[in-house]
Amino acid sequence: MTELFVPVDHALGDLTGQLTRALRGAVQGGRLAAGARLPSTRALAAQLGLSRGVVVECYAQLVAEGYLVGVRGSGTRVAAGVARPPAQEPPADPDRPPGHDLKPGTPDLAAFPRAAWLAATRRALTAAQHGRLGYGDPAGLPELRAELAGHLGRVRAAAAGPGEVTVIAGVAQGLSLLVRVLAARGPQRYAVEDPCSPGTLALLRAHGVEPVGVPVDRDGLDVAALAATGATVVLVTPAHQYPTGVVLAPARRAELIAWARESGALVVEDDYDAEFRYDREPVGCLQGLAPDSVVHLGSLSKSLAPALRLGWAVLPGPLAADFHHAKRYADLGTGVIEQLTFAELLSGGGYDRHLRTVRAVYRRRRDALADALRSALPATEVRGVAAGLHLYLELPPGTAEEAVVAAALERDLRVEPVGPMRLSPGPPALALGFGVLPERRLARAVELLAEAVDSAGGTGRTGRV
Amino acid sequence: MTELFVPVDHALGDLTGQLTRALRGAVQGGRLAAGARLPSTRALAAQLGLSRGVVVECYAQLVAEGYLVGVRGSGTRVAAGVARPPAQEPPADPDRPPGHDLKPGTPDLAAFPRAAWLAATRRALTAAQHGRLGYGDPAGLPELRAELAGHLGRVRAAAAGPGEVTVIAGVAQGLSLLVRVLAARGPQRYAVEDPCSPGTLALLRAHGVEPVGVPVDRDGLDVAALAATGATVVLVTPAHQYPTGVVLAPARRAELIAWARESGALVVEDDYDAEFRYDREPVGCLQGLAPDSVVHLGSLSKSLAPALRLGWAVLPGPLAADFHHAKRYADLGTGVIEQLTFAELLSGGGYDRHLRTVRAVYRRRRDALADALRSALPATEVRGVAAGLHLYLELPPGTAEEAVVAAALERDLRVEPVGPMRLSPGPPALALGFGVLPERRLARAVELLAEAVDSAGGTGRTGRV
Repeated sequence: MTELFVPVDHALGDLTGQLTRALRGAVQGGRLAAGARLPSTRALAAQLGLSRGVVVECYAQLVAEGYLVGVRGSGTRVAAGVARPPAQEPPADPDRPPGHDLKPGTPDLAAFPRAAWLAATRRALTAAQHGRLGYGDPAGLPELRAELAGHLGRVRAAAAGPGEVTVIAGVAQGLSLLVRVLAARGPQRYAVEDPCSPGTLALLRAHGVEPVGVPVDRDGLDVAALAATGATVVLVTPAHQYPTGVVLAPARRAELIAWARESGALVVEDDYDAEFRYDREPVGCLQGLAPDSVVHLGSLSKSLAPALRLGWAVLPGPLAADFHHAKRYADLGTGVIEQLTFAELLSGGGYDRHLRTVRAVYRRRRDALADALRSALPATEVRGVAAGLHLYLELPPGTAEEAVVAAALERDLRVEPVGPMRLSPGPPALALGFGVLPERRLARAVELLAEAVDSAGGTGRTGRV
Repeated sequence: MTELFVPVDHALGDLTGQLTRALRGAVQGGRLAAGARLPSTRALAAQLGLSRGVVVECYAQLVAEGYLVGVRGSGTRVAAGVARPPAQEPPADPDRPPGHDLKPGTPDLAAFPRAAWLAATRRALTAAQHGRLGYGDPAGLPELRAELAGHLGRVRAAAAGPGEVTVIAGVAQGLSLLVRVLAARGPQRYAVEDPCSPGTLALLRAHGVEPVGVPVDRDGLDVAALAATGATVVLVTPAHQYPTGVVLAPARRAELIAWARESGALVVEDDYDAEFRYDREPVGCLQGLAPDSVVHLGSLSKSLAPALRLGWAVLPGPLAADFHHAKRYADLGTGVIEQLTFAELLSGGGYDRHLRTVRAVYRRRRDALADALRSALPATEVRGVAAGLHLYLELPPGTAEEAVVAAALERDLRVEPVGPMRLSPGPPALALGFGVLPERRLARAVELLAEAVDSAGGTGRTGRV
């Protein structure tokens, strides 16, 4: 007979619940071993000062759950094979952010319009009919699709009606679904810009795709080189190539579309930070030029915050149905409250207001960062157009990128090397983001970077040779 | 030379933007054909009463975007091959809901605690540090995983630390990710309960899985029959089988776990409405009994609202890492604001309060529906335990399910036939949900159902034969 120490506190009420949790925990934790015989309900009730009914109900519950077995004639025993819980630790906290952060890929999270987002959520929740809280159309809420079609037409010169827009959980989900949809149509050969986003590369590889790299020059993707690869799908960032910052030149746009039409290939346009062009109007998206050959992907991750996990895809008609099917069976659709909230923000003009506000802030930061770099590191070169949330800094030939990154980290400065973004060797370079650091702190970060380039043996300070 | 009618309104300002949108639209819509020559900048400026700079800037923008080409010596022309936008219509509105809705699968959307959810969103957004708005851990926010581990331990007797909990976009996403994770480990053979949820069947088939059905009797899944299938994965609903409403009996729980351990198979537990048991404490989840053999999936779709697209998965350690990887490359993680909001609702007790409130409501509805059915359709049988958001109504032998469903629809009553949920033939039956209709309207719905059974030639009213 097992002697049980079971803490039951009469003042807390729900004695059956307390006793059940305590005994279940003792079995799960291994303190009550398989086969161990429990006291009779009468004995345990007496021991704990409980009514017998409480113990009877508790045992019945644990028998129903499978922790105990009632054996006729031999009382109640602990069931065999009930395992201890795994002892895995909770996940560690994320790394402490560095003091000076020039890592690209995140907008200014301090600029997220919390009050406007919350107000839009309140309006959305107040106005929504009950039925909206059920399962929605997996392709997205009709009103958000309509707002997005209008917005993308106005701001990005996209050519899409609401029926062509799908709401997704971000560009990563868009790519992930697209890869599966295209795989079902036959073997594909993927091309990416070289260099390109390491996250995109990792995502493709996680889905079993090994892309071929196509060089990027000052006019963007080399379309002749692309044509030579035999690719059936190419991923591009035409408005502001990541990481080099160049814009796809007009002639190249025409060539790319002609290539896609002739070869039947698909162009996947990641319009990742097209909202932010500082020297002129942003170039309209490729999709508007050739809606039958282009998949257009965008999200709120750079314009508002990555935490929202909200984006959109515009697909040629024949692909859209397969894409909706894939979205349905991936997650039944994106969360409705966020969709309603974003639709509110779009229709009320709050999204445009936010973009105007942060555009002015980023523009000043970009200018300040470029000026500081030219002054402190005259032998380096800032390339690409004045756009987006990062700039591309080419280091003097022979500089060891990784040594610069390490030396920067020693100074509590985080910068991103371009090497890991390349599929074939290229000049040493860094991608420097200005989403995180405010304008007044950029000069100090550049001083630290100049020290890091020096200490890594670079010649950044000494002027062009 | 093309004569252009371009509406430009000086009072609206941004003349360049107006002109650019108008010309771009004319090209996209086909009113300006490929190769058409545009007026000189000087001529168009004069025609429209604009300064020439405005027209120059507009042409330059459209050349950069690829809509126009500037040909030296022959002016500016419309680029070749710029397509008209597709003419796909916006998606149709969803069907009008029926007047009397007994379709299962949705909770009472009118009971969604909008004020509490909004207040929790406000607290979450107010308290969150800026860094929380970036990319989070794809496996979920640490605080939500910790709250969920505690909640599932208390309420469902799960044995999981925060490290074993993954936040997902709902049970459908959990299954979709799991199918891919398991496929990467080798060929699998899936078993499902027969009958089972048609949504689950459709999802498996969309992912290329054709499951084998295993009969369900009054004690739940027939484990001996399961063992004979050679399945490597089985999907079960032990707390309240869908649609039959039975609970997996204690001996069957032990057999199922013993089978999984011996064969190395995986049990996937869809805990879809375990929060709602009306006659006694809900039976603890299977996962707590055998954390090494069970994947536990749950969501807010039945307890709060499907619109939230928020759920959780608890996986054995070795699978968890692969599952996190799959989640990362599916969508980079679930939306952070909803995660923070739900963590607030859990930690502040609001979730438990909501469950207590709706549990009382659903209990009364279930009783009222069962009573009305017994009275109006004495030859039918209500099976399963008092739990969940639906009950299982077995129709008299020989009744044509589909005829009853059609006759009900003619009376503006929606009910769900069990036939499409079966992999092998079974008795005629309906799954009747009480999530939608309030208590006072259930009697009328049952009257209509009795009429429908009558008109379909059933003998439901006439008493058991």
